[in-house]
Amino acid sequence: MALPAPLRGVVPPVCTPLDAEGEVDTASLTRLVEHLVRGGVHGLFALGSTGEVAYLTDAQRRTVLETVVSAAAGRVPVLAGVIDTTTPRVLDHARAAALAGADAVVATAPFYTRTHPLEIAAHFRRIRALCDLPLFAYDIPVSVHSKLSTDLVRELALDGTLAGVKDSSGDEGGLRRLMAALGGPDRAAQGAPGFSVLTGGELTVDAALLCGADGVVPGLGNVDPAAYVRLYDAARGGDWQRAAAEQERLVALFAIVDAGPEDRMGRSSSALGAFKAALRLRGVIERHDTAFPQIPLDDESVARVAKLLADAGLGAAR
Amino acid sequence: MALPAPLRGVVPPVCTPLDAEGEVDTASLTRLVEHLVRGGVHGLFALGSTGEVAYLTDAQRRTVLETVVSAAAGRVPVLAGVIDTTTPRVLDHARAAALAGADAVVATAPFYTRTHPLEIAAHFRRIRALCDLPLFAYDIPVSVHSKLSTDLVRELALDGTLAGVKDSSGDEGGLRRLMAALGGPDRAAQGAPGFSVLTGGELTVDAALLCGADGVVPGLGNVDPAAYVRLYDAARGGDWQRAAAEQERLVALFAIVDAGPEDRMGRSSSALGAFKAALRLRGVIERHDTAFPQIPLDDESVARVAKLLADAGLGAAR
Amino acid sequence: MALPAPLRGVVPPVCTPLDAEGEVDTASLTRLVEHLVRGGVHGLFALGSTGEVAYLTDAQRRTVLETVVSAAAGRVPVLAGVIDTTTPRVLDHARAAALAGADAVVATAPFYTRTHPLEIAAHFRRIRALCDLPLFAYDIPVSVHSKLSTDLVRELALDGTLAGVKDSSGDEGGLRRLMAALGGPDRAAQGAPGFSVLTGGELTVDAALLCGADGVVPGLGNVDPAAYVRLYDAARGGDWQRAAAEQERLVALFAIVDAGPEDRMGRSSSALGAFKAALRLRGVIERHDTAFPQIPLDDESVARVAKLLADAGLGAAR
Amino acid sequence: MALPAPLRGVVPPVCTPLDAEGEVDTASLTRLVEHLVRGGVHGLFALGSTGEVAYLTDAQRRTVLETVVSAAAGRVPVLAGVIDTTTPRVLDHARAAALAGADAVVATAPFYTRTHPLEIAAHFRRIRALCDLPLFAYDIPVSVHSKLSTDLVRELALDGTLAGVKDSSGDEGGLRRLMAALGGPDRAAQGAPGFSVLTGGELTVDAALLCGADGVVPGLGNVDPAAYVRLYDAARGGDWQRAAAEQERLVALFAIVDAGPEDRMGRSSSALGAFKAALRLRGVIERHDTAFPQIPLDDESVARVAKLLADAGLGAAR
Repeated sequence: MALPAPLRGVVPPVCTPLDAEGEVDTASLTRLVEHLVRGGVHGLFALGSTGEVAYLTDAQRRTVLETVVSAAAGRVPVLAGVIDTTTPRVLDHARAAALAGADAVVATAPFYTRTHPLEIAAHFRRIRALCDLPLFAYDIPVSVHSKLSTDLVRELALDGTLAGVKDSSGDEGGLRRLMAALGGPDRAAQGAPGFSVLTGGELTVDAALLCGADGVVPGLGNVDPAAYVRLYDAARGGDWQRAAAEQERLVALFAIVDAGPEDRMGRSSSALGAFKAALRLRGVIERHDTAFPQIPLDDESVARVAKLLADAGLGAAR
Repeated sequence: MALPAPLRGVVPPVCTPLDAEGEVDTASLTRLVEHLVRGGVHGLFALGSTGEVAYLTDAQRRTVLETVVSAAAGRVPVLAGVIDTTTPRVLDHARAAALAGADAVVATAPFYTRTHPLEIAAHFRRIRALCDLPLFAYDIPVSVHSKLSTDLVRELALDGTLAGVKDSSGDEGGLRRLMAALGGPDRAAQGAPGFSVLTGGELTVDAALLCGADGVVPGLGNVDPAAYVRLYDAARGGDWQRAAAEQERLVALFAIVDAGPEDRMGRSSSALGAFKAALRLRGVIERHDTAFPQIPLDDESVARVAKLLADAGLGAAR
Repeated sequence: MALPAPLRGVVPPVCTPLDAEGEVDTASLTRLVEHLVRGGVHGLFALGSTGEVAYLTDAQRRTVLETVVSAAAGRVPVLAGVIDTTTPRVLDHARAAALAGADAVVATAPFYTRTHPLEIAAHFRRIRALCDLPLFAYDIPVSVHSKLSTDLVRELALDGTLAGVKDSSGDEGGLRRLMAALGGPDRAAQGAPGFSVLTGGELTVDAALLCGADGVVPGLGNVDPAAYVRLYDAARGGDWQRAAAEQERLVALFAIVDAGPEDRMGRSSSALGAFKAALRLRGVIERHDTAFPQIPLDDESVARVAKLLADAGLGAAR
Repeated sequence: MALPAPLRGVVPPVCTPLDAEGEVDTASLTRLVEHLVRGGVHGLFALGSTGEVAYLTDAQRRTVLETVVSAAAGRVPVLAGVIDTTTPRVLDHARAAALAGADAVVATAPFYTRTHPLEIAAHFRRIRALCDLPLFAYDIPVSVHSKLSTDLVRELALDGTLAGVKDSSGDEGGLRRLMAALGGPDRAAQGAPGFSVLTGGELTVDAALLCGADGVVPGLGNVDPAAYVRLYDAARGGDWQRAAAEQERLVALFAIVDAGPEDRMGRSSSALGAFKAALRLRGVIERHDTAFPQIPLDDESVARVAKLLADAGLGAAR
């Protein structure tokens, strides 16, 4: 399907359910997509950080993307992460994404290597030139260890390289400056009418929308997509108190990310494990295993997730 | 005067005007305080990072604080930064602040040294025990190179060590989690009824207030205090669109911080110089010099500031 | 060929010559291997950071490894970098390396993701369990953004997971503590007799060998392998003054890494371009292009390389 | 006394013994100075990071310096740390140091603030201009969070601003490049004949001396000054194997820095507590308390220190 320009709304980064052998559980993934689409989301971001893209082999990435595209069945657009260290490797993923039927690709700046801003600009331009899909920049310094500057994103928005940015930098002030630099809500005035600003911050969606963001890519949206859609709709309707109240409820639910014991597993593993545990408890996916070498949530941690789900009034999703 | 509990509203970090010899220009500082109080601010934060506290000798810090307290004349509370590397040195500043008549003190975690969270907790408790003034924690990782954890701030809020936190971490999601951990807007329910959450982010004040923050400490508030007060009032009145519009205007004005040439001076020097240049152009202070070794704004940069002031419709303040 | 245990000596990270289309120039690579082997090196590290591994597609990695193994022809062992974000992806590379005939594999900790030390330990153990080749840990915080702790490396050395470590952390003190923890030069006493400590620091090889390191992986060794071998031999023979003098000469030559203009390209691109330019000037490889999106050295920069080569008395290598 | 140019040898950063009230224990400090001078050290660095300078009030700093100068009694030069956030505050300390009779001052780049390299250069030049004592730059990124570039140090060495650098960056390769840039051992050839390069790395002193460093500032030198002097003498005499053996013994002793429990105190507190515990056990100082808010070593940790002292054959020093 054609990607709306700008892309707006709730676009969850889709979790990747795994089976006992660590392979993609396509049946669970199909159910997850259904759960999200029925929740009212406006798009799907497959193979993002929350989708454990960094842990998936090329073959597994292909399986994920084909499954998501097939399950979405044209009802919402599918963005595909093409995450890898540098341009030549990203291009291999972009070609695979196009073949699998993705509607857009999402790329970070190079990582592992140390790269000059001019080289980062060349990176995005080359991807756009060689891949016939809209391109989103994924600004995630916690993973990539560099931050895309406002000037660079603006330049790449105005010259048509980028269709949007997914900002997971947590730098809300910087994002505000970017939106101002693009002409505020009326981006058309600056020559980037279709450019989409999406925030990765799942705890400040009301705030980001108030600031002029077009949409949100919330990991927690896997667990409760309908709540993010309600939040989004309240904000779009100008009912900010209602939006803030929905957000408050989701902030409380977000505590699941700390379910795992801090001294025995990483915070990222804990969060991804918690999203999957919640999806399993809600009956959407089969198992809550995360990809190796992440340490899985133990029973006590899963019980904590269950308690918080109950507090949020979330039962079986089907 | 007694500090309101919780402290709410606009509390600008007061700039420190300097004369040609680099000494505190008390006449200009007195006019600046008048400018802020007449702008409607709810408190003053003297000797913060924006006040160039790290560049002032102990004698100069004393002069600043006495001048601000005297000029405020009990109309608004005065918070005093007591910024230094560790507890014993902070305590010397806290004693001086009490003597000078400050209504509260604001301290960071230790810096220069590497400190364990348990040591940071002991640091704040000792300051509170030995200084008979309300204590705010100043969370500013860009300067201190460690972040106060949500758990630590919550613990120190609940046991009465802290009267509030001034969050300059830029981590709006973390701040949202802190407020949730303190029981949301109704903090009384959790036993911290007077605890105040202030954000240092001057570009997302509307968003922070929507998220439940009590107030804001905006460096740019030196230049246009009345606008921040309008923003605050709109938010308190539930007129979020109006609040966002005020914020948009201030985001545009904030571009003054990049007035100085990036290859010849630091971004911090550029921002502080720009605030002072704007205050000089508005007739509030005499000179726009920043403290040594900061490189001063050149004429071309000041012209950029003047242009942005004009765009914002800001003329002489008196 | 069987890998010596411990591996000792000079093991350059082999550059990857590219043709005008950005593809691997196998003829140049074959000549480079010959240049290194004739220079007396004790091993070859293909697909390391200096080999631009992060810029090579899987197909190109395979070509590089097959070329190096074939050109080495069993005269020296070939270590293969299997650099990727996490265990499942690293294992795919490890399988390819075994097929291509590598004598050992070299893996970093996971990157892009945030990983707990227990997860890092599991990562290395799984690689070792599923790949029938000796495994070296590659400690390169500048790329991976975490540091392998002395305790972890010691544990993985003693239980046989690791055959050695390639330390590019620059933390010489930490390396000294690791070697002490392994029992000093006589590692057998601690149960890790075959464990090899290699340093990636090309400017302090004399110092590292004095401290007890087994060998060195110097990027600059591509340009002048014989000098590193002379340095190594002097150190092994106890002639430390001679070793230091050889090192001094190489420190002067190392200035080529700054040949490229700082404002127009990254330092990594400048260094890799300079190594390649030097190899071209010495007649070893055809072109000095680096992989996209790295900005290539311009003529002026190449002239700087040529000047430093001449100062070091380095002419045509063949 | 006049400072040798260049300053060479072992210059320990003197610990600051405290009494039960947290005040400077001048009797213990006097004994410590005697212990160091009798151990053969070539200078004393008072008020460094190891001396807990960041934890001492201005009054305590004065007491420390007067005590050390008086106890040294002209037998060895005394360098005084003048550590503070920016130039105006550093200058206050520098004046106090001159009054107290220091032979040189040691300053870091500004910290807490964010400073441009041009501002850092101005900072050192202003200190030199206004303080009539030789000036050493203290490069300690772990505390200051910026690194002095080779180019900057070279420039300030050649123009006479700096008498030397104390490098605690751990970047031995960078230090090697600096020494090469200054003309190698024969610095006179480059116009900086009296410039002194001191390394703060206590685990690689043999290596640093082999690389051309003039001296070393080892925290562990408080505990066993004579061993560092033997190491230095061996290196100066060209007996590198003996130097390395002395270093090996000190690397083993250095394990005392991890005596304190990792989950209950900072690594810095553990190391400083261990140095002091060792000095107490050796009968040099009265108590092993560190300054507040550092958590003190418990009995179990002190027992660990005692065990390692015994392993190193270190008994009562008097």
